[in-house]
Order: sequence, then C-alpha cells, then structure tokens
Amino acid sequence: MTKTNPGRFFEDYRVGETIRHAVPRTVAEGERALYHALYPQRFALHSSDAFAIDCGLDGAPLDDLIVFHTVFGKTVPDISLNAIANLGYAEGRFLKPVYPGDTLRAESEVIGLKQNSNGRSGVVWVRTTGFDQNEDAVLSYVRWVMVRKGDVDAPAPDTVIPDLEEVLEPEALSVPADLTFAHYDFTLSGERHRASDYAIGEVIDHIDGTTIEEAEHMLATRLWQNTAKVHFDATHRPDGRRLIYGGHIISLARALSFNGLANAQIIAGINGGVHANPCFAGDTVRAWSEVLDSTPVADGICALRLRLVATRGAAGALRGDDGKYLSDVLLDLDYWALMPA
Amino acid sequence: MTKTNPGRFFEDYRVGETIRHAVPRTVAEGERALYHALYPQRFALHSSDAFAIDCGLDGAPLDDLIVFHTVFGKTVPDISLNAIANLGYAEGRFLKPVYPGDTLRAESEVIGLKQNSNGRSGVVWVRTTGFDQNEDAVLSYVRWVMVRKGDVDAPAPDTVIPDLEEVLEPEALSVPADLTFAHYDFTLSGERHRASDYAIGEVIDHIDGTTIEEAEHMLATRLWQNTAKVHFDATHRPDGRRLIYGGHIISLARALSFNGLANAQIIAGINGGVHANPCFAGDTVRAWSEVLDSTPVADGICALRLRLVATRGAAGALRGDDGKYLSDVLLDLDYWALMPA
Amino acid sequence: MTKTNPGRFFEDYRVGETIRHAVPRTVAEGERALYHALYPQRFALHSSDAFAIDCGLDGAPLDDLIVFHTVFGKTVPDISLNAIANLGYAEGRFLKPVYPGDTLRAESEVIGLKQNSNGRSGVVWVRTTGFDQNEDAVLSYVRWVMVRKGDVDAPAPDTVIPDLEEVLEPEALSVPADLTFAHYDFTLSGERHRASDYAIGEVIDHIDGTTIEEAEHMLATRLWQNTAKVHFDATHRPDGRRLIYGGHIISLARALSFNGLANAQIIAGINGGVHANPCFAGDTVRAWSEVLDSTPVADGICALRLRLVATRGAAGALRGDDGKYLSDVLLDLDYWALMPA
Repeated sequence: MTKTNPGRFFEDYRVGETIRHAVPRTVAEGERALYHALYPQRFALHSSDAFAIDCGLDGAPLDDLIVFHTVFGKTVPDISLNAIANLGYAEGRFLKPVYPGDTLRAESEVIGLKQNSNGRSGVVWVRTTGFDQNEDAVLSYVRWVMVRKGDVDAPAPDTVIPDLEEVLEPEALSVPADLTFAHYDFTLSGERHRASDYAIGEVIDHIDGTTIEEAEHMLATRLWQNTAKVHFDATHRPDGRRLIYGGHIISLARALSFNGLANAQIIAGINGGVHANPCFAGDTVRAWSEVLDSTPVADGICALRLRLVATRGAAGALRGDDGKYLSDVLLDLDYWALMPA
Repeated sequence: MTKTNPGRFFEDYRVGETIRHAVPRTVAEGERALYHALYPQRFALHSSDAFAIDCGLDGAPLDDLIVFHTVFGKTVPDISLNAIANLGYAEGRFLKPVYPGDTLRAESEVIGLKQNSNGRSGVVWVRTTGFDQNEDAVLSYVRWVMVRKGDVDAPAPDTVIPDLEEVLEPEALSVPADLTFAHYDFTLSGERHRASDYAIGEVIDHIDGTTIEEAEHMLATRLWQNTAKVHFDATHRPDGRRLIYGGHIISLARALSFNGLANAQIIAGINGGVHANPCFAGDTVRAWSEVLDSTPVADGICALRLRLVATRGAAGALRGDDGKYLSDVLLDLDYWALMPA
Repeated sequence: MTKTNPGRFFEDYRVGETIRHAVPRTVAEGERALYHALYPQRFALHSSDAFAIDCGLDGAPLDDLIVFHTVFGKTVPDISLNAIANLGYAEGRFLKPVYPGDTLRAESEVIGLKQNSNGRSGVVWVRTTGFDQNEDAVLSYVRWVMVRKGDVDAPAPDTVIPDLEEVLEPEALSVPADLTFAHYDFTLSGERHRASDYAIGEVIDHIDGTTIEEAEHMLATRLWQNTAKVHFDATHRPDGRRLIYGGHIISLARALSFNGLANAQIIAGINGGVHANPCFAGDTVRAWSEVLDSTPVADGICALRLRLVATRGAAGALRGDDGKYLSDVLLDLDYWALMPA
C-alpha cells in the first residue's frame, strides 16, 4: 500500500467534519526578510519595530499575508491536492497579529458540498482557521474549490451551500488590541493620505510593474510549505509551464499597492477574491485599486474597503463587454484595510 | 606572491595532520527560513518549535542538513578546491542538535592517501568534524575526494586506506538527549506511519518532482559558504553550464521524501553516499526511498536505515545491467533516520 | 489628483533642505542569511558571533553593506526616482555597527545643485545619514545624481557645488568601540595576511567569478526596499533588459574580494565610487583590488585604502588609452577597510 498522500477526492468530504492539517510552522525574522526580498513590501508597520511600537504594538507583526499563506499552505495536502480550480474566498478575518517566533497550525471545517452535474467533480467549501501556539485563532477564512471525484460512482452527497457574507461588516473586523494611530508619522509611513483623503469610487494606479522569475515564485510557494505539484514541476503540464501560486500574485499586488495606499497598514478582512487568469514566469504584473467603502472602526482608525486588481494590462480595466474578466486580469481581491482616519 | 588561496594539491596532504577550516558561521532563523524556501521541507520537528518542545527538545533544531552543508562548505577551500571528483561519504554522525544562534566551525583530519596509478592525482580521505561555540562536536563524517597534483614530480606518499564502517552500528547513533516520541501527534506530523509500518525492502515513490533553477542552487550553495567555482561561474566549464552542488540534491531529495516518510524526523547517521551523475538547472528531480533496515535505539524511538535516491527518472530504478548507475540517477544516499517506533 | 509618488524633479530641490525618507526598517538575522545567500560573503567578523566576540564586539554586526543598501534604498523615492544617472559617492563613513534587531531610517540634506547647460536636467548633491532606533547616526555619505526637470521652464537655481574630500582622512574614520584584533585568529579568518603584508600599489586578482541571475539581483534590490522601476520591470527599457542595481555589484565585488583580502574585515569609509558600465543578468562578474594606502588607526588596527574593481574582464585593466573606463569595467570603488596591523 502506498505511503504517500494521494489527497482527498470529492467523495471523501463530509459536511461538519473538521480536518486538522499537518506540520505546524514557526515563523520568524527569516520569513520576514524573505517576504521583503520576494515582494516590494514597504508598509511601515510590518517593516519597522520602532514604527509599530509607536502604533501601540509590541513590535512589527509579520505581514498579514505571511499568516494567510502559511495557513493556506497547510491546507493544500488535505483540500486542494486534487483540486481542479480554486474558486473563491470569503469571510477572511485577521484576528490577532502574529509576531516572530509564533507557531502556526491550521484546521478546516467542511461547510458545504455540491456535486457538479457532470458527476465527475464537485465543489467543497471549507472554513479554515489558523491558530498560534496558544491555540488562539489568528486567521479564519472560507475557501471553495472544485475537486475531482476519485470514484465517479460514489453517490452524490446532499447539497449544502453555505450562506456567506458578501462583505464583512466593518464593525465585526478585529482591530489589534492597543493599536493607535495617534502618534502616526506620515513622513515615515511614506505618504500623507489618510482615509478621509480617499473618495469612494476612486481608482488608484499603483504604476510600478514587476516581471516574475521562476525562482522567485517557487521560493515563495515553498516558503509557505505549499506542496501543489503544478507550481514546481515543469513536466506536470503539457505546455511545460509552471503555474504561479495565486497567493504570490496577491502578495505582489498588495506590495505594489503601497504606491498610493502607503497608509493602508493592516489587512483586517478579505471579503472575496478571484484568481481571474493564470500567471506564469516572464509576466510583468501591475496593480490598481478601487476604493469601495470607508468607515471608522475605532478611535482614529478607519477601515477602507478596497478592490485590489493585479493585471498584465492597464489600470482600471477589469471586465469585457461580456462581463468576463479581461485576459490580462490576474486577481480581483476585495478586502478591508485599516488606516489612519 | 599571490594573496589568494590556490587550494591544496594532492602532495600537500599528510596522514595525521589536522586542518582547521576558516570562517566560523552563526546559523539562525534566517538560515531556517531560507532552507524552507529552497527545499520543500516539511518535517515537523524542524518546522515547529511547538512540535519540537512536545518531543522533549528546547525548540526546533536547525535541519540536520543545514549543519551538514555548513560544515561541508567550510572544508571546500582546504579539501576540494582542486578536486576532480567527490568520491564518497562514510561514518556520518549527527552528534548534537544545532539551534538558531549557534556558531559552527570545522576541522578535518587527513586519514588516508593513495596516489593514482597515473601519477597525476590521488585520493584524499578526511574525517571532518563540526563544532559549535562550546567546542562540542555536532557532526562528524568521512569524505574522500580525488585531488590533482600540483607538481606531478612530487613523490607518492605511502598509501594509507582507512578502515571505514560500511554501515554505522545503530546502537552507536546519537539520540538527542531528552528526545521522546511519547506525545507524538501523527496528525500534525503529516502521516500516520510509524517505523513498524515499514517493511525491509519496501520501496517508496515520493511522487513529487521539482524543476531546479540556476538562482536557487546558487543561493543555496552560497548560503553554505561553499566556494567551488564550478557552481557559480558559467564561463568555468566548456559547455557553459553550472554544476549543481551535490548537497543541493541531497537536501532536495530528503525534503521530497517527506511524502511517505513524514515521521523520519531526524537524520542520525550517513552510512554512505554517491553523487552518481551531475545535475544542472532545468532538470526535474524526483526521489524514492528503499527501507534497508529498522531497529529500536531508545524507548519508543526506532532507527530506520534508508536508501534515498534522487533521480530524473522513474522510482525504483538504480543501476543498469552493467551494474552502473543509470544516467538519470543523481544521488544514492544510505542513512539512518530516527522515527517513532 | 494622483495618490502615487511622482518623485522629485530637479527644480524641486533646495540647497539646505532636509528630506526625511520613508519607511524605517528593522534588519535582523533574516537579512544576514539572505546576504550570505545572495553574495559569496565570508568575512568572519560578519559571519560569526563567536569570532566577533573575540574581536571585542557584542556579536557579529550586520555586514556594512547591508546598512549601506538599506539606507540607500530609503532615499530612492525622494532622490533618484527621476534620476538619469547615479554620478558618484563621496565621504562615506560607517559610524556605528548595526546589529540584528536594529531599526534604520534615513534623511538627506541637499548640499549642492547645478543645472545642466541643456536646461533639461541638473545635478543634485545630497548628504544622506542613516540613523538607528536610538537616533544615533550609523552611516553618512554624499551622493550626486543627475535628475531631469519636470518643468523645463523652471528657473535654474544658484549653482552650489559642495567641497568634498577626495579621500577621507584615516584618523577621521570611526573604529568601532572596543574593537580589538589582539586575539585575532588568522586561521579562522581564512588568510594569514595582515595589513603590513600588503604593498601600496599591489594588485590582487580575486580570481572567482559569479554569473548573475535575474531572480538574484531582484531579490537583493527588493530586500533593500529600493523601488527604482528599471531593476524590476522588463517592459521599462526598450531592450527588455532589467538594469542591475549598482549596489548589487558593490556587494558582489566586496564578497569576491575575500579571496586575497580575507582580513579586511570592516568597511570604515567610502572615498568614492563610480558605476562605470551597466550590468545585466547573464554577466559573469569578477573582481580585483589595488592597495592605495595603508595607515594605522588604532592599537593593532590598520586602515587599508583599496580600489575595488568589478569587471567582466581581466584583473588589473581599468581604463583605455582614452582615459575612459573599459567597457567591461562595472565598478570602481575607493574605500577604507580596517584590518589587523
């Protein structure tokens, strides 16, 4: 009998079951440095202990997306090894800052199942939670993926489609304890714009572009212990190309968004996200944002709801006349960021 | 007179002499993070402080191969700068876990010499020991290399061929003090198989493949301060290719072996190893293991003797009808791993 | 109105103004490990806590060039985003060792302006100072760049050309407090040569070459939060090539210079530097040094003035008959290093 992990197939999931994912991971100064080397990350709160201390924290927490990728990576062997497509994210909540030295593990509850009409695959919804070494939840999000069936004759499960919030209520976002922007230095942070300087509907072209190399996306994806073959093995796809992990594009776009959103320091929630088209080494990725909403959440702290788009094309362009994403669009992410009010 | 290091030639070695190698190195969280970025490393004991503490240790030690590569790298300027071939390893013992913040240095004793019949080169055997900042030995191994003569007229030394153990006695392996698998969590570790689930002779195909990029193997090899020109300088070989450091393949294969050997947490000893064929960027590397032996070494702890093969080809295939390694085979490593009994 | 940083144009600078640069950065063990992965760095004082403690320090400081690049990177958005050329460096002083965990920020004083005769650009001189979290200056240097005008009709400023020292007085160099080479181990450091073994005029060929990959120089340049588009975006230049950050070549050449200058442990000052030709991925970079001066600066400590040249060509060759740098020459750096007398 094989000792290796064949991954789960659609018929292996049961609504209500909880899957504890393998390999807890301690994240520290090394992961932070690599994050800065892999992405043009400049948000001051995650770059500088001194700046973070001035914001009431104990030091610079690890970038929110380090937490997301680490937790996500843990789920891959159990959730998406036999996935055909990563369909979406919802209800992503960053619940507690993660500091160097913390150890992360993850578990996922199956919250929805729907077999496809072709009988060969189905959609699995999971709510994944990341925990630190104190068993405190640091991140929670819903993801749904299309998974192939191992046995096409396995009976279809009862269809359960979870009721998901389209947009997180801003008052339900977690604001880190003791966070304050009362002594915020807008020169050190890189831009003078506070939340009130952004108009709903405003589109920000983040201007800069980054051409991606194979070594870079593989270093990143391995760093999160993401084991999906398609990112690493050039013999896996008929065209000999390695598909870039979608989270690499999220981090790249978020880092590029510093240029115009330098004070959007913290990702508090992810309302939704779509990897609209695959990305490959050699692509030059740009980013633009659209301000969707803005609301105060604490004294001097505002939540800005942002659409973050990664694209190989022009800023502002998202969908064609047919309502479908343009072929240059790589990512459409809807998130809440915390910034000075 | 030149100030640069010309390396030693065959006639420069004397049996019994001890060579203290240059440049001690402090290894810490940064090396750990890079190791995870460079290799698909998931062994829980080296990934998570919390998991390691549950196994009785003070925290996650650095991966055993970080120690091996760091010590090995120190020896290159004195042992293999003028080497024609790295012929083999034996009697590798990991003697003490290395933790972030420890400083490693190395020294080698020349234990064997044999001039080749062509009179132009010879084989040098050294026993290399790595020490930490407390002068405790952390690693010891024998390596033999073919080294060219600088002066072909230099007299041949008396031939001394060391008597090396073909396989380390398992009872002589170092089990880290306080290591216990009594509270081992087989869900967090990634697989449920304990030593008793492996049959001698069993072959495990680790399935996954990784295509190697130039930037990756150079980052890794520099990280270990290995200075051999052939890894970095595309103008060095007539074919313009950079030879990948053999240790990069060891680490890659060991990391891939997680898939099927997730509980083989610690490398306790290296019985032997051969770099069967050179590897170059663009190659897609896979790995398979064969269980050679299994024996208890402490309460609840078993040593599994494993053959680890890195290959560009199929699992299980090692040698042709002529008894020689197949051209796809890159590495044949024989080692002892510690796992729950 | 655009939210992104358009950078400053020539007419935006005023002599005497001080620009506080954005995004302080905590540098730690991760940056050290990455530095060792990116460059063939082996200087013992920056590699080993134990070696540094034996030299009277509290542990291994971060490599001097980590400090230089981090401070330099902070200045890019304010100084060189619209630069046409990076013209030179002078009066670089390393004032205080930087240790893992320190946070760096930077500010620049405009000390000179001269509009070019074409009326379309001008030269800006700045004195940049890096500070740690205690507001202690850790590095100071002068840089001058050619910057385009945003409005060609803007009036020319009064010409102010700063009076810069061609060579720093060695007695004005900062020797780290408590630094001592009294217990220096020339075996562990890698070479036996002390300052008195070097003759003024001596040329040292550092022998080794490194072929640069795109992923490597981009990882490095991002690590220093340097945002200049030309390093990252293959669509930016008509020829589709990414220009390698000049500082990457400085670090590469300095690391290569270990082979022949292993005891030139600390960069105390930079007298001047020219990036003579652009460098691109695929280039194989070598280095050579010329000893320009040597003088004692403290008990047992000597300052060696060195010319460090990075080249794609032969050691010793610098300029053609026309007095211009040969096309293979990439860097001509004049610096003071501290080594055992």
